[in-house]
Amino acid sequence: MKIIAIVFFALCALAAVVFVMSPGLAGQAVAPAVTTKTQLIEDLVYGNRILYNEGVVDAFGHISARDAQNPTRFHMSRSLAPSQVTSKDILEYDLDCNTVGAPVAVGYGERFIHCGIYRARPDVRAVVHAHSLSLIPFGVTKTSLRPVFHMGGFLGNSTPIFDIRDVAGPTNMMVTTNQLGDALAKTLGDHPVVLMRGHGDTVVGDSVQQAVVRAYYAEVNARLQGEAARLGTITFLSSEEAAKAAESVPIQRAWEMFKTRIGKLE
Amino acid sequence: MKIIAIVFFALCALAAVVFVMSPGLAGQAVAPAVTTKTQLIEDLVYGNRILYNEGVVDAFGHISARDAQNPTRFHMSRSLAPSQVTSKDILEYDLDCNTVGAPVAVGYGERFIHCGIYRARPDVRAVVHAHSLSLIPFGVTKTSLRPVFHMGGFLGNSTPIFDIRDVAGPTNMMVTTNQLGDALAKTLGDHPVVLMRGHGDTVVGDSVQQAVVRAYYAEVNARLQGEAARLGTITFLSSEEAAKAAESVPIQRAWEMFKTRIGKLE
Amino acid sequence: MKIIAIVFFALCALAAVVFVMSPGLAGQAVAPAVTTKTQLIEDLVYGNRILYNEGVVDAFGHISARDAQNPTRFHMSRSLAPSQVTSKDILEYDLDCNTVGAPVAVGYGERFIHCGIYRARPDVRAVVHAHSLSLIPFGVTKTSLRPVFHMGGFLGNSTPIFDIRDVAGPTNMMVTTNQLGDALAKTLGDHPVVLMRGHGDTVVGDSVQQAVVRAYYAEVNARLQGEAARLGTITFLSSEEAAKAAESVPIQRAWEMFKTRIGKLE
Amino acid sequence: MKIIAIVFFALCALAAVVFVMSPGLAGQAVAPAVTTKTQLIEDLVYGNRILYNEGVVDAFGHISARDAQNPTRFHMSRSLAPSQVTSKDILEYDLDCNTVGAPVAVGYGERFIHCGIYRARPDVRAVVHAHSLSLIPFGVTKTSLRPVFHMGGFLGNSTPIFDIRDVAGPTNMMVTTNQLGDALAKTLGDHPVVLMRGHGDTVVGDSVQQAVVRAYYAEVNARLQGEAARLGTITFLSSEEAAKAAESVPIQRAWEMFKTRIGKLE
Repeated sequence: MKIIAIVFFALCALAAVVFVMSPGLAGQAVAPAVTTKTQLIEDLVYGNRILYNEGVVDAFGHISARDAQNPTRFHMSRSLAPSQVTSKDILEYDLDCNTVGAPVAVGYGERFIHCGIYRARPDVRAVVHAHSLSLIPFGVTKTSLRPVFHMGGFLGNSTPIFDIRDVAGPTNMMVTTNQLGDALAKTLGDHPVVLMRGHGDTVVGDSVQQAVVRAYYAEVNARLQGEAARLGTITFLSSEEAAKAAESVPIQRAWEMFKTRIGKLE
Repeated sequence: MKIIAIVFFALCALAAVVFVMSPGLAGQAVAPAVTTKTQLIEDLVYGNRILYNEGVVDAFGHISARDAQNPTRFHMSRSLAPSQVTSKDILEYDLDCNTVGAPVAVGYGERFIHCGIYRARPDVRAVVHAHSLSLIPFGVTKTSLRPVFHMGGFLGNSTPIFDIRDVAGPTNMMVTTNQLGDALAKTLGDHPVVLMRGHGDTVVGDSVQQAVVRAYYAEVNARLQGEAARLGTITFLSSEEAAKAAESVPIQRAWEMFKTRIGKLE
Repeated sequence: MKIIAIVFFALCALAAVVFVMSPGLAGQAVAPAVTTKTQLIEDLVYGNRILYNEGVVDAFGHISARDAQNPTRFHMSRSLAPSQVTSKDILEYDLDCNTVGAPVAVGYGERFIHCGIYRARPDVRAVVHAHSLSLIPFGVTKTSLRPVFHMGGFLGNSTPIFDIRDVAGPTNMMVTTNQLGDALAKTLGDHPVVLMRGHGDTVVGDSVQQAVVRAYYAEVNARLQGEAARLGTITFLSSEEAAKAAESVPIQRAWEMFKTRIGKLE
Repeated sequence: MKIIAIVFFALCALAAVVFVMSPGLAGQAVAPAVTTKTQLIEDLVYGNRILYNEGVVDAFGHISARDAQNPTRFHMSRSLAPSQVTSKDILEYDLDCNTVGAPVAVGYGERFIHCGIYRARPDVRAVVHAHSLSLIPFGVTKTSLRPVFHMGGFLGNSTPIFDIRDVAGPTNMMVTTNQLGDALAKTLGDHPVVLMRGHGDTVVGDSVQQAVVRAYYAEVNARLQGEAARLGTITFLSSEEAAKAAESVPIQRAWEMFKTRIGKLE
């Protein structure tokens, strides 16, 4: 019996070694465990703080997360600068952007970005809307945002631009109705990022973590692309390289470091 | 009687809900309540600190506010770096830039920027003068500063440039007389921003809050425009889009976040 | 007797008003009072810290000051990163870069920049040597650094470039002998700034304060000029404007703010 | 006997003076003393923190050091963001990237960059892999990274670019096998830096200190080169100047300042 145990533990150790040393596995993100609502809200608060702390949003911009249990609900702060959001500020919405239960506070005027995308994209579990400074120039010119390095691989081969004028004529540039939300989601298609002409960008992910890390690296990639374009003709990642790189990025390592920079939530 | 009261309050609650959930209204700035002198001075001190903290001014630059009760008076710090201004440093001026009462300290040499504009523009309640680094290049070249995104919508269709040489020949570039103040105000016209060749910029608003947030986003817009111009031809906001966007920006959300970054005044 | 006193004080008040309100005087730098050695060393330590804190130097670069009483002596830190300099690290040198008294520590290898300039320029009382990131590009291309705004007015009409290769053939780029110091001072001529090809820059002033504030604004002006050049043809300050602007800048206001950002010296 | 001692010490003092005042010697790096394993690990932890603190790495990138006694071993953190590495996280590897002893934690997926270079370059004692933002644009265009100033002299006359596609076709861009490590080391050749197309860069040194300071200045040089290229044709350091400058840089002064900015390790 003792020998069996020894052999068993030896095999365990061997398996651990194989796992640790395997180039294909080591350092990759593991699929996240099931998320409770408490955990989701905490992630959402961290997401708000991180987006601000890393320069993705300023006083404006917002992040939402689809409910972990009920896919027809999502959570997002009341109208507040992201740096100031706490768990008490998170409202619950249905997929038409109505608050669930009695409304306790004013929501973001542009919440329709979020419900529009949740309606159209069942795979999406988190949405970030930002006025990322490095992305805006790509939304107002004909230069297409494409992956300059592996961390931008998720961008794929091109990034669509939503011009609100095409669907609504002259406006205040903001997505403030369900119709506009639908139009934005249509332009997004199955991409991870949509640029919004004269306004900003919207980034989606299969988790708060992925959406935040993508929003951060979309910004970094844009900065790199602008600089590289000034040096000469850019060799972008090919579609195949981009797809493989996107699968390999350890999202969790970036998320944990971003959280460390925030510290404990008060 | 009691029932009437209940119905009345229920209607109030309903109205509040309608207001909160209305896409067209939610998130918009509400007209500020009447401001006391104490509140105005506090806003002015915050304005100084925020302009410094957000990189709009360095050791130079200044902000003033028209008196809340007497439109022929305005308030501005004595000659001091904006980051060091406290409520005790605020002087009161008349519209010819004479201090009201016995002068207790040296004023800014360029206070004539402020009184010049207050004389010419009754609608203006606050003036910011800065050497914003992103704006100066637009004042020394023929590239016109225009709105790249909705937050810069207030810029309208163009931004005038004041060349002091046109009115006074070779000078030290500074607006140090009432005549020069008049000339600057004339170039400003009914715009929110005037660039000053080889010097900086001046931004006006209907409140300290609006002038500060505009000064910040004028700077951001300039940075975006410079970067976008290097990527290709820019699609600017149309005049109509710019006007609608300018009306929709929730100034107060930015102001509150900027204040939070400063913390309590000592 | 009482009446005379009243008249006297009234005249005082009037004089104060005239001074304060006079555009030509208000806000200008006043000639500094005589400086003691203790004060000079403290200024020098602040100068080191400020240059680092404002991004003018990193681990390298140095600042020196001519002795307040004996013009054949000057003071500079031993070989140390500027951010770490304290009053105990300041050495005294003669104009051939020999330390006065027993040498107590290793000096900067490039101290010959300083004594070379003090020998050639009796008007110079402080010297800053830096590898300012915005200035280096101007030293390796044919683009001449010129005043884009009034704060850069002191640059005058052009900025000379010292190419060490012209006087010493291929070297390690550093000014490490009295002969090289002489050559650098010759290229500097009566300018306030000399760029050093493939190396950095050297800035002089009539006080530690002026040299530090000039080193800071030379850097800012370079950044502005680079950006403006990308927007279009630049209208620089004319020679006359530059000279007038240079005379009007209140050095002391910038110096005091820079000091405040450092806080008390330990 | 006493007199001999006095003469002897006087000669010592004289020698010290000559050394201190000698332009050719003062300020240069002295060859480091033999390093213990404890010291090496501490340097490695500081290296991680410094690379993060100075903006060379973000959540990704890593640094390793060859063992001080056994050149067939090297040390590197487990898979962790560099800002979070402590001495307890350092693993020991052999030159095939197997952990020595029982593996206690998951290693970096790209550790093969390190062992590949240690196999090929006996002179290398430390390796930094980073996604330095200023270097990536040089890896995706045909612009060659070259020394713009003396601090970049170590770059020599050119910088090789590794395109993983040339050796492995479409991949996720990462160096995750010994074969890819060999290919990278081959492209590196005897250079100090190799750029990796669509990914980042790898920098080597004869000590942790040298590798870190080089990684920092490679980044700075790239930023300067990008800016200078926009101003006009660049006069780079000649090969001879670059070689001489590389020998003269006081690595230790930068390292000590970087350490001071980190403070004591917890």
